[in-house]
Amino acid sequence: MTARLEKYFNAKSFCVVGASTTPNKPGNVVAYNFVHSFPGETYLVNPRGGELYNKKLYKSILEIDAQIDAACIIVPAKYTPQTLKQCGEKGIKNVIITTGGFSEAGEEGLQLQQQMLEIMKKYEINVIGPNCLGLYSPALGYDTMFLPSSKLKRPKSGPVSILTQSGAFGAAFIDQLSRLGSGQWVSKFVSYGNASDINETDSLEYVGNDSNTKMVLIYLEDFKDGRRFMEKAREISLRKPIMGIKANRTETGAKAGASHTAALSSDDVIVDDLMKDAGIIRVTTWDQLEDCVLAFGTQPLPLGDKVAIITDGGGAGVMASDMVSDCNLKLAKFSLDVQTKLNEIFPSFYATGNPIDITGSATAEDYKIALEAAYNDPEVNSVVNICIPVIPDLDINEYMKITKEIAKRKEKPFVTALVGGEEADFAAAELLREDIPVFTSPGRAVRALGMLTDYTNYLRKHGVDPSSISVEE
Amino acid sequence: MTARLEKYFNAKSFCVVGASTTPNKPGNVVAYNFVHSFPGETYLVNPRGGELYNKKLYKSILEIDAQIDAACIIVPAKYTPQTLKQCGEKGIKNVIITTGGFSEAGEEGLQLQQQMLEIMKKYEINVIGPNCLGLYSPALGYDTMFLPSSKLKRPKSGPVSILTQSGAFGAAFIDQLSRLGSGQWVSKFVSYGNASDINETDSLEYVGNDSNTKMVLIYLEDFKDGRRFMEKAREISLRKPIMGIKANRTETGAKAGASHTAALSSDDVIVDDLMKDAGIIRVTTWDQLEDCVLAFGTQPLPLGDKVAIITDGGGAGVMASDMVSDCNLKLAKFSLDVQTKLNEIFPSFYATGNPIDITGSATAEDYKIALEAAYNDPEVNSVVNICIPVIPDLDINEYMKITKEIAKRKEKPFVTALVGGEEADFAAAELLREDIPVFTSPGRAVRALGMLTDYTNYLRKHGVDPSSISVEE
Repeated sequence: MTARLEKYFNAKSFCVVGASTTPNKPGNVVAYNFVHSFPGETYLVNPRGGELYNKKLYKSILEIDAQIDAACIIVPAKYTPQTLKQCGEKGIKNVIITTGGFSEAGEEGLQLQQQMLEIMKKYEINVIGPNCLGLYSPALGYDTMFLPSSKLKRPKSGPVSILTQSGAFGAAFIDQLSRLGSGQWVSKFVSYGNASDINETDSLEYVGNDSNTKMVLIYLEDFKDGRRFMEKAREISLRKPIMGIKANRTETGAKAGASHTAALSSDDVIVDDLMKDAGIIRVTTWDQLEDCVLAFGTQPLPLGDKVAIITDGGGAGVMASDMVSDCNLKLAKFSLDVQTKLNEIFPSFYATGNPIDITGSATAEDYKIALEAAYNDPEVNSVVNICIPVIPDLDINEYMKITKEIAKRKEKPFVTALVGGEEADFAAAELLREDIPVFTSPGRAVRALGMLTDYTNYLRKHGVDPSSISVEE
Repeated sequence: MTARLEKYFNAKSFCVVGASTTPNKPGNVVAYNFVHSFPGETYLVNPRGGELYNKKLYKSILEIDAQIDAACIIVPAKYTPQTLKQCGEKGIKNVIITTGGFSEAGEEGLQLQQQMLEIMKKYEINVIGPNCLGLYSPALGYDTMFLPSSKLKRPKSGPVSILTQSGAFGAAFIDQLSRLGSGQWVSKFVSYGNASDINETDSLEYVGNDSNTKMVLIYLEDFKDGRRFMEKAREISLRKPIMGIKANRTETGAKAGASHTAALSSDDVIVDDLMKDAGIIRVTTWDQLEDCVLAFGTQPLPLGDKVAIITDGGGAGVMASDMVSDCNLKLAKFSLDVQTKLNEIFPSFYATGNPIDITGSATAEDYKIALEAAYNDPEVNSVVNICIPVIPDLDINEYMKITKEIAKRKEKPFVTALVGGEEADFAAAELLREDIPVFTSPGRAVRALGMLTDYTNYLRKHGVDPSSISVEE
């Protein structure tokens, strides 16, 4: 069975209904996006007629003398039902409605959504929305996000697909990813809003089958179709990692959500269990999101839970070790020859156990020795590279070179924590530009490994070899 | 009784033993610091004699013909006992030993520390260290941090005192604070290392009495004198907030700590209870540290647990509301006239409950109306200002102006979350420059209020009026 979203993304012709000539208005932005990026045929509709971006503005959908595979309706809520009806008459089967003012906006909106549903049914139209950003795929030149790119920066093509109930969440996160590292992150973005028709499960089904999607990130406030969602997730999570925010965790959040996407809260403990059972890695804070993308989007999966920590600051090593324990990881015990080697090379006041603490006397060469020893040790499944750059003898450029060299190998997860002020920020930005996962604290670096290892453990529990899965692009 | 550290910070004359003429060596950096910043008399000692920074290099401490109130010894570990003995003979009663290689470094080091202790006792010398950064107070021109300021940036004078067992933690955090907002954060910094003599409790006692210290932040791996520490904390936390990291929380962390500051782990559940009971706000992650400083260092205490959330993104509002619940806060119920006013002014698709969701249609003027209404409502104890700047009609400069105006009032806690990419980063940096607390996620902003409110609740429980305490400078 073909996933319903496939017909949208495979469209060869697309119609923007409500294309506006006023710069930066939603109908103007979406028209611009398709005219300039979509490789198929784009048709623009505006009842006043005229031209936009050297394209004819059809006065009505029915005037267009060609087959249209998909359309985006950007007209005020009250005109939406009649516009959808015209789509039906024209035979357009795949429609995105971005406008708000429906079930999330009181009695009147509910009635509008009801009218829309009837038309949808009658003409057998698939609908995404209303009250959403719709779809985005940089590789496909597909972009119904109605915010101008001067405001909402677009990330480039990459391995992550994002599904979101909240458009604002989606917009903020898309904007955030545009400046994370190389900015090459997004495969498919689906903002389905009120989910009058296509919902979280349909979206998940599509990205599950999409070979360009290496990992899935979902923002949910409620489930429209919880049982089928969990079934799909259970199946897909054996092939690619799924990270999920389920907001509305608390009664307080639920009250806030009620006026937002008309969401009802579920018992969070049950949700938590169901997500875990379906292999969804649950994310609760916004900070974790970027960390997820950096970890799963750039690193191979670890083949076990044994972590090596290299640090130039004892305190940072202790905090990282505490987090190792919090995340159900273990400190690796180095092989005998690694231990012997480190003890031979390093002065006696360096700690050569795990963490390897090369202290405030550390040089870039010391980092090279310690990192390579740990990385090459078969007893080690993943490596945490902690650096507090304030120490006197560390050449930060040399340190970055060494970090980049090891990061390139991608034989096991390798995460870096750069802690401090200006110099730490500088080095972090430089490494991130090459999509090397750098975190601002030892704890966040370890937690990223924790998420990767949780996924490895889930796969193993279900008889899947983690090395068969390539998460990074 | 005078706190022991007072004699250090009140010193009118200071001696750097081991002043080095080699640029950027520890003994060179500390000599530079004192010669250039210390308002009292500085003496430099180096067995080779000569001159440094236009000051005579005395060949021995005993050569100096003046009273010396405090000294810093920066010589290799093996020469430290005999140097300390000379301090004793000279009558120097307050000594800082920064060098490592003592109890944290095996049998030989332990013996050296034992020798040192005997001399200390015999001559009744107070000792800070060894294996530490010593003391720093920008207002007093006091700085034994032996890392050059080209590497370790120094924050300027401000309300926060920092006590740390780990020197590397201290260095990283000092460096971090130097680029946080205005950089005006530090009152006293005490890195006491192995705590051979002066320990966490002595340090706490001093900053507790220091009128320039408005808040205390402590990094501990173990307690040298746990009972007295908790007693002191219980007394001081009724006057000023104490934030504490107790690392070594887990068995894994404890193993890492053992080779670091020779620390032994305690049962963490007991530690947690004791800290809570003593009014110490426990911090577990590095990220929380900056958040603490921003919250307690710039905001008044809330007079209750009722929070108002203003947002232009429903999803961000839901996530913030979830965190309100996680932090034992409550969503405020607005007064009737505030509700009426908001309903009159705002279009029907804005949510005027709490959170106030002014949606993707928000303008800066909408923010002004919503923020002022919430801030002025007596039913509201603190305000969360969430902004996802990607929306089309928001003038970010106007938004910043409004945020700055409200932030200036300081009648109740007011925190901002700016979520997104480049524009969010730009606005955050601009607001932070004026020490307005801005966070990168809704959850962190709410958690900062949670910490402030926890402290209010602790004070009330012990009969102290939170409005009597001024945490911010």
